[in-house]
This record gives sequence, structure tokens and C-alpha cells, in this order.
Amino acid sequence: MEKIILGIDPGTNILGYGLIQVSGNSIKLLGLGVINLQKYDDHYIKLQKIYKRLQGIIQEFCPDEMALEAPFFGKNVQSMLKLGRAQGVAMAAGLAFDIPITEYAPRKVKLAITGTGTASKEQVAAMLSRMLNTEAKPEFLDATDALGVAVCHYYQISRPGIAKGTAAKSWKEFLNQNPKRVVKPKKSKES
Amino acid sequence: MEKIILGIDPGTNILGYGLIQVSGNSIKLLGLGVINLQKYDDHYIKLQKIYKRLQGIIQEFCPDEMALEAPFFGKNVQSMLKLGRAQGVAMAAGLAFDIPITEYAPRKVKLAITGTGTASKEQVAAMLSRMLNTEAKPEFLDATDALGVAVCHYYQISRPGIAKGTAAKSWKEFLNQNPKRVVKPKKSKES
Repeated sequence: MEKIILGIDPGTNILGYGLIQVSGNSIKLLGLGVINLQKYDDHYIKLQKIYKRLQGIIQEFCPDEMALEAPFFGKNVQSMLKLGRAQGVAMAAGLAFDIPITEYAPRKVKLAITGTGTASKEQVAAMLSRMLNTEAKPEFLDATDALGVAVCHYYQISRPGIAKGTAAKSWKEFLNQNPKRVVKPKKSKES
Repeated sequence: MEKIILGIDPGTNILGYGLIQVSGNSIKLLGLGVINLQKYDDHYIKLQKIYKRLQGIIQEFCPDEMALEAPFFGKNVQSMLKLGRAQGVAMAAGLAFDIPITEYAPRKVKLAITGTGTASKEQVAAMLSRMLNTEAKPEFLDATDALGVAVCHYYQISRPGIAKGTAAKSWKEFLNQNPKRVVKPKKSKES
């Protein structure tokens, strides 16, 4: 199974995206970035930017699947309507190309990546950096959730138990199943 | 000014659409219909149907502008998220073709068509039938709001005061400005 997964974290101010190529047990980072929507005042221009940028990304990378980080509850009806619209145009970009979409709650993404559903954005970013052998850059943070949901989806389709957080019966088993997620102490230059 | 306006009433179960061609004071009905989403169980299939059907309609009729009936408040965050998504994919279909979008609250549409913001669906349908010289058919009702918002948008761009319901200073003035909206008693065949 070789697949390209596009992960998206659709917000109304910043939309993050991350692309991975998965094959067997290997995960390769193809690309990641953010669409900064704060600079546009007009609501429709924001939505159009989401649609057109994602359309361009899909045409460039031809992802096989799309995974969305989607909170299912929000503060108020107004913000949920706005979020729903942002999600809707993002989904439309994928649906236009018949790409299957799967959604994951933020907690589930954190759980799949770090083993705990309450991990901080920085913890998720650090874990993803190690898994994908990339450096965590400042601009990386906004795309972290998007990359996280792509990796979470990969776990879900390849090893469903892991993504559900139920496969490993012990901590030792979890570590054995996930060698890349073990943080080895760096050798300090000073020592 | 000759323009084609696509009016949409995006719901998660039934999406209504109506197309009018406007030129000066004349309004011509080009088409109307509904996209029945109830027959699809899958949420993404529903959204995809909205996107692809509207894309087809836009490619067929090449509308210059799009008008959406959009309630700004809802019962709960869950239904607003769903409605937002349906609105989002509908908007994406227009935004993909760079079609300007304008939204109108249901009350404003009713006010623009019938002169009262609390008119029933049947009253709006009856008024539209007269204005567009068409018969109100049973399947027409679900597309009424969509056709109504297209006509409302036409008033807004051609005679902004009318759509705001503020132009006519008296009932007589309103009737003089809107001869097509005067209901003349039909001559009965029996009499």
C-alpha cells in the first residue's frame, strides 16, 4: 500500500495542511504549510482562498485520501457556522476530485501521535519531527495539527487499533510497536 | 444590464435552486429545482452531491451572480456546523468560477417579495408565480426560497431601496412601483 494523505486543519484565520507519503511502515513528509486568511477582510475571499489554494495543492500532490481535524463542539452557533463553512469549502476541494474524506477529533489526533489526548501542540510537533525526521521550525507549529491528522489517518487505515489507542496492552508493548516514538536523550556537546 | 442570477437555499436535506435572467425591469425564469439529499445516508456524499450538481448548473447556465438564503442563527452548534458545511460546499461551487456571492436572511427575502417579513412559503410562492408568469406547482414549493432570494438579489442590485423595504413611503407608492405585485381578481369561468 502506497498512499499520499493530505491532512487539513481548517480554521477561519489560519488553515494548516500537511502531506505525507506512506508505504508499509514508512512515513515520508511531502510538504506542509499554512494558508494565512487573516490578511483578507472579506469572508468570501477567505473561503475562496481556502478552496483555490487547496485545489492547487491537490492538483500538485494528487493525494489519495484526505483527513480533517474537526472539533465537533464549539462555543456558539455563530462560530460554528463560520467553521462549518471553512470546513465545507475545504471538503469541496477534495470532493471535486472524488477524494475520500475522514474526520478526526483533535483529542484523537493527539492520542494517536503522542499516546495522550491532552498533549500540547509543542509535544505533538516534537513527536512528529522525530517520526518524520524533520526539524521543528517556528512556522511548523501552525501546520502541526494538519500533519498530525494525516499521520493519525495513516495509523487508522494501517493499524486501526493504534489510532484508537487500544492496541497496546502495556506501555512496553506500545514502545515496541512504536520505536520511532521513543525519545532518546541527545548527547550533549558539553558532556 | 442583463444578468443571470442563481439563487440557492442550501439545506442539509433539500437544497433548492432557482435561476432568473434579469434585464432592465424584466425578470425571466430560466430554471428551478431541488437537490434531494435525503436519499443519501453518507454526510460526505450529500456534500459532494451539492457541489457537483451546483457545478453542473453553473456550467450550464453561467450565472453572473449567486444569492444565498442564509439564516444567521440556529438552534444548536451541531446543526449550525452541518448547515455551515452545506453552505460552504455550495459557495465553493460558485467561488470556483469567481462568481460573486451575496447572502440574504430569510426575513429579508420575504419582505422583498411580498412586502412583509412574516409571509408564508405559500404566499412567497404565489407572488413569485405571478411575477414570473408561471404556475405554482407542488414541487415548486421547495425551490421557492431559492427563487425568492434570486429575485430579492435582483431588487437589491437594481433598486436597493425596494429590497430594504424602505423605498416606498406609502402603500400606494409601493403598488405604483410594483405593478406586477398587485393581485388582480381572476375572471371566473362560471361567472
